Amino acid sequence: MLRGRFLLEPIRSRDNTYVKELAGLLGSRKNRDRSGLFALEGLRLCLDAAGSGLPVKQLFLTPRAAACWPETEELVRAAERTLWITEELAGRIADTKSTQGIFCVCPKLDNQKCAVTIKGSGKYLLLHQLQDPGNLGTILRAAQAMGVDGVFADGCPDLYAPKVLRASMGSLFRLPVSDRDAAEAVIARLEAAGVPVYAAALAPGARPVDEADLSGGCAVLIGNEGDGLPDGLIRACAAAVVIPMAPGANSLNAASAAAILLWEMTRKRP
Amino acid sequence: MLRGRFLLEPIRSRDNTYVKELAGLLGSRKNRDRSGLFALEGLRLCLDAAGSGLPVKQLFLTPRAAACWPETEELVRAAERTLWITEELAGRIADTKSTQGIFCVCPKLDNQKCAVTIKGSGKYLLLHQLQDPGNLGTILRAAQAMGVDGVFADGCPDLYAPKVLRASMGSLFRLPVSDRDAAEAVIARLEAAGVPVYAAALAPGARPVDEADLSGGCAVLIGNEGDGLPDGLIRACAAAVVIPMAPGANSLNAASAAAILLWEMTRKRP
Repeated sequence: MLRGRFLLEPIRSRDNTYVKELAGLLGSRKNRDRSGLFALEGLRLCLDAAGSGLPVKQLFLTPRAAACWPETEELVRAAERTLWITEELAGRIADTKSTQGIFCVCPKLDNQKCAVTIKGSGKYLLLHQLQDPGNLGTILRAAQAMGVDGVFADGCPDLYAPKVLRASMGSLFRLPVSDRDAAEAVIARLEAAGVPVYAAALAPGARPVDEADLSGGCAVLIGNEGDGLPDGLIRACAAAVVIPMAPGANSLNAASAAAILLWEMTRKRP
Repeated sequence: MLRGRFLLEPIRSRDNTYVKELAGLLGSRKNRDRSGLFALEGLRLCLDAAGSGLPVKQLFLTPRAAACWPETEELVRAAERTLWITEELAGRIADTKSTQGIFCVCPKLDNQKCAVTIKGSGKYLLLHQLQDPGNLGTILRAAQAMGVDGVFADGCPDLYAPKVLRASMGSLFRLPVSDRDAAEAVIARLEAAGVPVYAAALAPGARPVDEADLSGGCAVLIGNEGDGLPDGLIRACAAAVVIPMAPGANSLNAASAAAILLWEMTRKRP
């Protein structure tokens, strides 16, 4: 069945309407925001999106990709429209250095899915002005692995940026994430629901995280890689917590710190 | 004093002997292995190296870097030789996209410093065939922050590669790290010293890490990002441990997993 499709000459030009749209969605947040669509690259991410029930509007494949990965058949079945592109064009569009030649265009998750429902016994992660897309994606992946009930991002890289999607390994499709509200408003909503919010910050009076009680419903707020959290946000939280470090050590990578905090929030207590 | 030095015209050419050496050390492990030297880029890393007592053989500065960061005076004092380079040359040599225009050449840490002394009550991290230099550096940074007694790396990226140094934030200068021995030999030495080695692996019989006892002297072995650990190495370990994950979650980034395991090894028990 796939073989039949090769009778169509693969697209070589960036001027093709669909290819232009794909490149625009990979390249800029403005295009994603305006259209409500986003683009994915790579077999695993595309399969993950389709497997999570996201409609695949367009699938782009190189003949080599179809020949190398039989799983692309699944994508062809899921896609509303499949387009063949040349190896050379795939390389020019790709966000990665050595592309597999597989791309999808999907509608962004709808508001319903993106909305995080707050419950008193829930575990939440708040992210404020993270800068690095790789960190954001890695943290989303860890949040899903640790089973938190939702993530709120404020002033972070676009959730649908290619680097975020890649580092998140598709966890965005399976994790309630909202990036619509300012951190102040989210903290107020959480506290109103009886969920204490802990700021991860070296603030006066900050408690070592292993002495804080994160066993019940709670949220942790993590700030910018270089500058941490602004004082106003720390004061809005129930308390500040720190990860105790060895003498002479100065810091942890934001994603490493998030992994430890997520683990402390969700691990079983003896 | 710095001003006087500006009377010398900054070097513009890659053909300068010292510039050639710098570019070679940034660019290839072979050059680092052959010469026993390595190169650092950026104010913070260079200050860190000098502050940790590493001899700075050559310091390269652009006039702009010297004007922007008064701390470069400290580097000039520490360096055996300071060379001025043009902005344009700095951009061409740099491993980063927007360079600060600050580079150092230092001798690699000597064997004495690199050697990890094994004690029965110690905490150790073993890394086997990690692939990503960023992951390796992030893990070294977390290992130093959590205060482990030493790290053994086997088949990982070069500890002195620019990306590793950048992600490690200079923790390499303050953490005993050895990359001379095969993992099998290290496991045997640790077990002989009474230090049980736990393989982080989804192997049959693997215990959830929160049910394993990592409170005493112990070591954790982490494998390749995509392929994990080979069966032979898992069998050589005392036991296998896993980080319990939420249903539907498939994996954690290697550095996130390492952060959680390092935390579990070193956190205070109630």
